[in-house]
Amino acid sequence: MSSHWMPAQPGEAMVDIDTPALLLDLDCFDANVERMMAAAAAAGVRVRPHAKSHKSLQIAHRQIAAGAIGVCCQKIGEAEVFLGGGIRDVLITNEIVGLRKLHRLAQLAKLFSGARLGVCVDDVGVVRQMSLICAEEDAELDVYVELDVGQNRAGVATPEEAVELAREVMRHPRLTLMGLQAYAGSAQHRRGVPERRDAASRAAAKAKQARALIREAGLPCEIVTGGGTGTYLYDARSEVYDEIQPGSFALMDFDYARNEHDADVPQFDHALFVLATVMSMRGDRVTLDAGLKAFSTDCGPARPAFAGWQVRSVSDEHTVLTRVDDSGPEMRIGAKALLVPGHCDPTVNLHDWIVAVRKGKVENIWGVDARGAVF
Amino acid sequence: MSSHWMPAQPGEAMVDIDTPALLLDLDCFDANVERMMAAAAAAGVRVRPHAKSHKSLQIAHRQIAAGAIGVCCQKIGEAEVFLGGGIRDVLITNEIVGLRKLHRLAQLAKLFSGARLGVCVDDVGVVRQMSLICAEEDAELDVYVELDVGQNRAGVATPEEAVELAREVMRHPRLTLMGLQAYAGSAQHRRGVPERRDAASRAAAKAKQARALIREAGLPCEIVTGGGTGTYLYDARSEVYDEIQPGSFALMDFDYARNEHDADVPQFDHALFVLATVMSMRGDRVTLDAGLKAFSTDCGPARPAFAGWQVRSVSDEHTVLTRVDDSGPEMRIGAKALLVPGHCDPTVNLHDWIVAVRKGKVENIWGVDARGAVF
Repeated sequence: MSSHWMPAQPGEAMVDIDTPALLLDLDCFDANVERMMAAAAAAGVRVRPHAKSHKSLQIAHRQIAAGAIGVCCQKIGEAEVFLGGGIRDVLITNEIVGLRKLHRLAQLAKLFSGARLGVCVDDVGVVRQMSLICAEEDAELDVYVELDVGQNRAGVATPEEAVELAREVMRHPRLTLMGLQAYAGSAQHRRGVPERRDAASRAAAKAKQARALIREAGLPCEIVTGGGTGTYLYDARSEVYDEIQPGSFALMDFDYARNEHDADVPQFDHALFVLATVMSMRGDRVTLDAGLKAFSTDCGPARPAFAGWQVRSVSDEHTVLTRVDDSGPEMRIGAKALLVPGHCDPTVNLHDWIVAVRKGKVENIWGVDARGAVF
Repeated sequence: MSSHWMPAQPGEAMVDIDTPALLLDLDCFDANVERMMAAAAAAGVRVRPHAKSHKSLQIAHRQIAAGAIGVCCQKIGEAEVFLGGGIRDVLITNEIVGLRKLHRLAQLAKLFSGARLGVCVDDVGVVRQMSLICAEEDAELDVYVELDVGQNRAGVATPEEAVELAREVMRHPRLTLMGLQAYAGSAQHRRGVPERRDAASRAAAKAKQARALIREAGLPCEIVTGGGTGTYLYDARSEVYDEIQPGSFALMDFDYARNEHDADVPQFDHALFVLATVMSMRGDRVTLDAGLKAFSTDCGPARPAFAGWQVRSVSDEHTVLTRVDDSGPEMRIGAKALLVPGHCDPTVNLHDWIVAVRKGKVENIWGVDARGAVF
């Protein structure tokens, strides 16, 4: 069902890329990855980048070559792609529920028993079912107890409940208790620096308390994992997190760019764009060939990466721009327009290909290998 | 890049379907299609359903079996899928711009020279380029002059310009002037009946005038095509449109359901749903395993198809529901939840499979064959 049609070939100029194409500026991408790895290394934490943002084996392998220890993902289908593509350490930062999914997960763990495959839990019933199914499938799994550190989306509510669930995990020989998942999702996009820093600090304090209680109970808690692009350096310097899970940093989007800049924290540049073509034009209205099926709008429509034009409307396959003033480029039918997506993760998921460009030339075309892996 | 993982097998119960899955209620779907065909037949117009909504060969063939004359689509990649899958009459209701795309389009027309392939134009330069490339590729194309009938997104502005462009098309022997594309996109979701009816009526009047002028100029205008789910019966009864292009009617979404009901116009029922599973729960908060990668949010997040619960937040792979009152179902981890998408087209595009159910049982699993065909 994915398209065989590739929008470009290596060596081509940007102007020749078929549209709407997902573009990755490799110089920016490389710099983003380097910046993250250097900051994490300086703080003494490992980086396990979230692969739900890019869904691409090429990107995962590049991040690992730059120092990442593996990847995170959200879905079993993503884990299949990354394990199958040679990544040896994959953590599903999510609860997996239901017989069908648990069998699939256990089969995957069995198939890649030489690699590490981890999963999160927040419910005792699911832990027991997971254990039974692992026995049936002759599989073993790494397990992280998810602790809710502020998002109220998943995870046990209190450090005490984390101890109880950790104790339960220890009762099941097929499950290896690795530690805590403690992701403060709601902290990532707090715009002001003090609020963001405080939210991260509260999350770390709660995770620290849970780790202490688990260890006091004589249970192992080797790894506390969590953190995202918005709070990564607060997490890394918290002395609580052993590894951080940022995803968007490598690509960036304008929603993350809206966060107030903290002068103490290295920032990341837009590396991800949607390239579109002007397909209709009248006066000061131009219509681009990229719409809701080329970028997500949950954080607002993609924005022109150039001055003088603004988005008037977006429909399935079109974005209409109108002229604001004369500061921008002249437009004509066939002209290319670079857009900055609002939210990188669901935007990448709309594309089969990432066109990797450097200094205006196509260097490579990478598959979005785990595109559409919703199961 | 698409997933080999199928969420269900024929004969299974709904409760066993893997999630998040795109569900089609076949009884509702069949009734929607039948209703549209009957209304159009009574008004004496043909139906060319828009395949951008469903992107599925199975659905296209069913609509044709019910009386549709072919399909519309927006992209060359979609036309490839539908022509390749045996549909003999495909209209791209969109302008195709750029050498790369025009060559691909001409090659497709050549490959399927026994079928009809149409495309829209609104620019004289593109018409000339299309003609040259058709000659190079030894191809012929059906051409529709797009007239802007209120959306201000594409199309020539005036009936007079439509005549000029039609005259230009006639100069190119590889291009067959078929008539007018006149789609009043902005009329479809006007909520009040009088406004919607008026917008449709203004669109039809402008198309009528353009057709008259084209014919007065001694040029052919065999077909006026356009219209959508929101205005289909006004279009069909206008005595201007020869064929209508509704897409959403077969699936439906809550954005179309928001339109004020016109007692004179047969309406359509929700046939499309996203099925999710409760993967985490605490008190009156439940977290589902379907998020931004399982439904689009451009018309708002998907809504529970059941009472007593409302959406609190949506993230990439999660939707959090909170309890409103006691009128709804009790929830537990592993329970299934049916959601109604806000906008069917970009929601379908997120899935590889449509699980076709009838009376609570899986009848079939259909591919979303043109998923991701952005080029």
